[in-house]
Amino acid sequence: MGVVIDGCPSNLELNNKCIQEELNKRRPGQSNITTERKESDTCEIVSGVFEGKTTGAPIAVLVANSNMRSTDYENLKDVFRPSHADASFFKKYGIRDHRGGGRSSGRETISRVMGGAVASEILKQHNIEIIGFARAIGGEEFENVDEKFIEKNPLRMADESAFEKTLKKVESVKADGDSLGGIVEIRIKNPPVGLGAPVFDKLEADLAKACLSVGSVKGFEIGEGFALSAMKGSEANDEFIPNPGSGDGTRVETKRNANGGILGGISTGEDIWFRVAVKPTSSIAKPQKTVNTKGEEVDLEIEGRHDPIIVPRVIPVLESMTALVLVDHLMMNKTISNEKI
Amino acid sequence: MGVVIDGCPSNLELNNKCIQEELNKRRPGQSNITTERKESDTCEIVSGVFEGKTTGAPIAVLVANSNMRSTDYENLKDVFRPSHADASFFKKYGIRDHRGGGRSSGRETISRVMGGAVASEILKQHNIEIIGFARAIGGEEFENVDEKFIEKNPLRMADESAFEKTLKKVESVKADGDSLGGIVEIRIKNPPVGLGAPVFDKLEADLAKACLSVGSVKGFEIGEGFALSAMKGSEANDEFIPNPGSGDGTRVETKRNANGGILGGISTGEDIWFRVAVKPTSSIAKPQKTVNTKGEEVDLEIEGRHDPIIVPRVIPVLESMTALVLVDHLMMNKTISNEKI
Amino acid sequence: MGVVIDGCPSNLELNNKCIQEELNKRRPGQSNITTERKESDTCEIVSGVFEGKTTGAPIAVLVANSNMRSTDYENLKDVFRPSHADASFFKKYGIRDHRGGGRSSGRETISRVMGGAVASEILKQHNIEIIGFARAIGGEEFENVDEKFIEKNPLRMADESAFEKTLKKVESVKADGDSLGGIVEIRIKNPPVGLGAPVFDKLEADLAKACLSVGSVKGFEIGEGFALSAMKGSEANDEFIPNPGSGDGTRVETKRNANGGILGGISTGEDIWFRVAVKPTSSIAKPQKTVNTKGEEVDLEIEGRHDPIIVPRVIPVLESMTALVLVDHLMMNKTISNEKI
Amino acid sequence: MGVVIDGCPSNLELNNKCIQEELNKRRPGQSNITTERKESDTCEIVSGVFEGKTTGAPIAVLVANSNMRSTDYENLKDVFRPSHADASFFKKYGIRDHRGGGRSSGRETISRVMGGAVASEILKQHNIEIIGFARAIGGEEFENVDEKFIEKNPLRMADESAFEKTLKKVESVKADGDSLGGIVEIRIKNPPVGLGAPVFDKLEADLAKACLSVGSVKGFEIGEGFALSAMKGSEANDEFIPNPGSGDGTRVETKRNANGGILGGISTGEDIWFRVAVKPTSSIAKPQKTVNTKGEEVDLEIEGRHDPIIVPRVIPVLESMTALVLVDHLMMNKTISNEKI
Repeated sequence: MGVVIDGCPSNLELNNKCIQEELNKRRPGQSNITTERKESDTCEIVSGVFEGKTTGAPIAVLVANSNMRSTDYENLKDVFRPSHADASFFKKYGIRDHRGGGRSSGRETISRVMGGAVASEILKQHNIEIIGFARAIGGEEFENVDEKFIEKNPLRMADESAFEKTLKKVESVKADGDSLGGIVEIRIKNPPVGLGAPVFDKLEADLAKACLSVGSVKGFEIGEGFALSAMKGSEANDEFIPNPGSGDGTRVETKRNANGGILGGISTGEDIWFRVAVKPTSSIAKPQKTVNTKGEEVDLEIEGRHDPIIVPRVIPVLESMTALVLVDHLMMNKTISNEKI
Repeated sequence: MGVVIDGCPSNLELNNKCIQEELNKRRPGQSNITTERKESDTCEIVSGVFEGKTTGAPIAVLVANSNMRSTDYENLKDVFRPSHADASFFKKYGIRDHRGGGRSSGRETISRVMGGAVASEILKQHNIEIIGFARAIGGEEFENVDEKFIEKNPLRMADESAFEKTLKKVESVKADGDSLGGIVEIRIKNPPVGLGAPVFDKLEADLAKACLSVGSVKGFEIGEGFALSAMKGSEANDEFIPNPGSGDGTRVETKRNANGGILGGISTGEDIWFRVAVKPTSSIAKPQKTVNTKGEEVDLEIEGRHDPIIVPRVIPVLESMTALVLVDHLMMNKTISNEKI
Repeated sequence: MGVVIDGCPSNLELNNKCIQEELNKRRPGQSNITTERKESDTCEIVSGVFEGKTTGAPIAVLVANSNMRSTDYENLKDVFRPSHADASFFKKYGIRDHRGGGRSSGRETISRVMGGAVASEILKQHNIEIIGFARAIGGEEFENVDEKFIEKNPLRMADESAFEKTLKKVESVKADGDSLGGIVEIRIKNPPVGLGAPVFDKLEADLAKACLSVGSVKGFEIGEGFALSAMKGSEANDEFIPNPGSGDGTRVETKRNANGGILGGISTGEDIWFRVAVKPTSSIAKPQKTVNTKGEEVDLEIEGRHDPIIVPRVIPVLESMTALVLVDHLMMNKTISNEKI
Repeated sequence: MGVVIDGCPSNLELNNKCIQEELNKRRPGQSNITTERKESDTCEIVSGVFEGKTTGAPIAVLVANSNMRSTDYENLKDVFRPSHADASFFKKYGIRDHRGGGRSSGRETISRVMGGAVASEILKQHNIEIIGFARAIGGEEFENVDEKFIEKNPLRMADESAFEKTLKKVESVKADGDSLGGIVEIRIKNPPVGLGAPVFDKLEADLAKACLSVGSVKGFEIGEGFALSAMKGSEANDEFIPNPGSGDGTRVETKRNANGGILGGISTGEDIWFRVAVKPTSSIAKPQKTVNTKGEEVDLEIEGRHDPIIVPRVIPVLESMTALVLVDHLMMNKTISNEKI
């Protein structure tokens, strides 16, 4: 498993440790509600860094593959697992690597997180921070947001009052050999004004693509999103309010940041926020029916241990994708804005 | 207003008429619930077509600008309209073309529709069809889907039983100087198997980006989308079912097409379907509060006549974006699939 | 004929006049040694500029097509002209627009020059200047370089002492219904240090591509080019020399700038210079033999009046391509260099 | 050292051995006229291949770094070697990895050759063959071309009659601590008709870029190249000749293939041929003068053993770049040609 990050500026401080820290956030086995499969996932920078600083050369980071027990997957060789990509991959490529490490495996997100870790180092220099948490689990939405609680609980919830009950629900579903999904909320603190392009490469469009490119993600909404579609214009519209503290008198602020910090595809300078729908883990222990490569109906039992909920481990992946989109737009903005002629 | 379409194969039959027909679907003034502003929007192909067939050269299509009455916009020169892009554009570019035809104007979708019209001609050769309709308006979701009804009503609804009531609601909101939003559903009939790339360029990711790149769009969900995030895995999972009629015995079908015809980023061959949240028209006649370029609070009344609901006119735009994404992936697939080595 | 320039910064002063001036340099009919075909070639900016400044939106510039007399080309309909692209285009696209205005026509360079004119406005802000001249004509290389003479003679030579004799040669070749080629030298004055990428997108690689993309160009050499391949290393190597006047003591200078101002793909800050081989005009009045679309041998006489030498009119095109490459690399450099983290 | 090849079709047979064979052609120590530095350069495919066939996933190939003796480079830490990229890299990135393995090192061509080896496997399926040889060395051009001789001599010459004399010359230059350059000719046998795009991405433009992107390359000419610029049109023009054996009667052939198998940027179906100027190895044992990072004049002696001529080892690199360009255009052509609508 590896990643190559091109286009990173030189002289940025970077080492294995700052990438490893991000990587540990998506690691399995962090608690009893994540899978206990042993993956060491130790990263090593093999190019692009010299004496602790980036040189401008592509940064390659490798993670050694832990031993996959191929036998775990042998019985899945000719079967299409429900809601998995087995069938569509097979049809597209005409060949099937049935072992568990292919590109439809969750393990490919290791590369996303390593890339995101480098992007985060760049964002830190701009004092931009990205925070993600579980806004809903199993259909129940949580109201309170205490950002300090997020890294203190294995579900990465921000609402301490709802935690115990939700944890019990997850454990119960796990005991049934079943799984849960949820909604992740991502917040970008202190984004620059003016990121995003006005037509096809709107900032929210690139964020949507980045999130939907992550396995198990089924929906995206910016700001109040789908809820806005049910309002009248007079309710949905979000008034600009006077902002006397701002230097040049023109920095804008709105009453409730309903549009998620982006208008016309371009960041307004308010915090950016959006939500992402994550479906329940498709690999469940419960018996299922499906078909094999001959089109015949077969019974399926997926062995091994699987996350009863993927949400807590998807959060660092979504944070990483967000960081990568922001860095891309920061760089594009340098070439396009009027200050840079 | 114009568009340049590069990469279109040669020898495709194309003329002004087939582009004009698509263009007429987004035209204002189609009924009394769209704005009555007179825009002729007559297109002319100026390159890339010779004797009714494409030559392989870029296809440029122009639409003459109708006379904008700049005076309509003169009083908006120093004001940031709520939920519009005035402020973010001004901050990004440091210059403001306050007339109504800029890139944050709905008029830029003319180019999208003209491009989509060309893409549709290519899709027709593959017997792929794209259909869009209003799945919800003003918070009310419609249950029935009669595709034949869509082009027979000015709201592009597919549910005849709900039409009269909804039309009255729209007319009433219009009389109040207010506006409504809604949810658009897009269906792709007979898509090829194997479109989409497995990691960053998943088919649903590119569809999400394409939809979110359209003004007023605030959300996207593929297949059952956000609803899946509230289910258990055993409910969300969608069993493959035997499909004896298929030629080679391996073509797959599922019980309810819950994932929207895409698994792992790659089309399965089932119909593709997704939903898009459209916010209410931001330009409303009702008085609003906002700020000017000095950051001072001002009262705002937007003159002119505006669509009380943008949904029916956004549908052909979303169909066009969908067509463009599909053609891109059709072409990418030619370079990548195993049949083409 | 038109061009769309995307990615231009906002607030750049731009008007029809500064584009027209560049366009006039490639216009036919400038003297009796260029073709006398009447082409008005008047350009008009139709988007992206508001009150004399760029808005950040794509800049579209149109030139109306002068009346082509299609009858001029009627007799060429089924014939492949020697050293023209008729045959390869026909084979690639399976369709043939035999009129003279296709993409293999010299008229497509109008768009290059209009794009280059906008790029030049950006380069002016960095005090970068691009100069091109005829270094050789018809096999005779000119020794002197007087840059002030270039725009004073219709051959765009820089060596006044050789001008009269060369002009006579061109006129004589024209009288014979024949044509000449030559070598163009391009010089970039005051380029920034550090432009170019170190592996695939070396600055000289992009310059080579840009030049070879122009019709009739058959060769490219950076700095002393092919001549270096015939030297020993001890002769070819170009010593760095002390440069005490430079601010930080590290700016480099070499004895003879043998490598053309680029080392390892990256500009050194010395002037960049390269040479481009231009073949003689392929359309000549002299009778020729060729084949028709049936593969039969036919006699060919190309009617109309053609430039006896294309070199003077290719120079502004090559200057334009150079300007576009430089602006691209200036923008890339903003995203990559260490000052911009 | 490594490479990632994306976009390779699935089901292509591929293994370490076919990549290793290409790699061995650029290896040092092949004879006494190449450097004797021990580099094992053993490649290993680490992704994208399953049971001997490509899966459609990116193909990553790694080569372990042999031990660089950093001490070899310690004395070069503050010195800019003449005609090397030390100074321009330092100015661009503000940081310097003075060890010998950076991106301006010849070792980066390992990745090009590994990528080219995969491309060659694809080309073999189309019966396309690429051959390169030394057309000139040290200023002397060789007349005869016997392709069978190329891999039988360490200079990769194609003219056996000139070999002994040339080898002596190289050995003599080596004994003097000096170096030689030369001209490489590349021939593409049996290319498809219709590759290349007609404006910016002309096939010869992409070939020129690919070649100029290789270190030490200073010039490129397609077909008769610079020589054409010295001819009259009536001499330069290359008549099409009847080609009765061809299937549909329209396949074209010319008298002497003067334009190198490409007209208007698009391949004609004749063999493609071009030449590339390679400067002498910049690292020579002879004492040189240069400056250090403080801008002071210093004496320089470069230790270690260096190739007295880089031409034989550059040939497989240029063949690889050619293969990569061809595969790119083969794939582009699938999306654009009229047969593929």
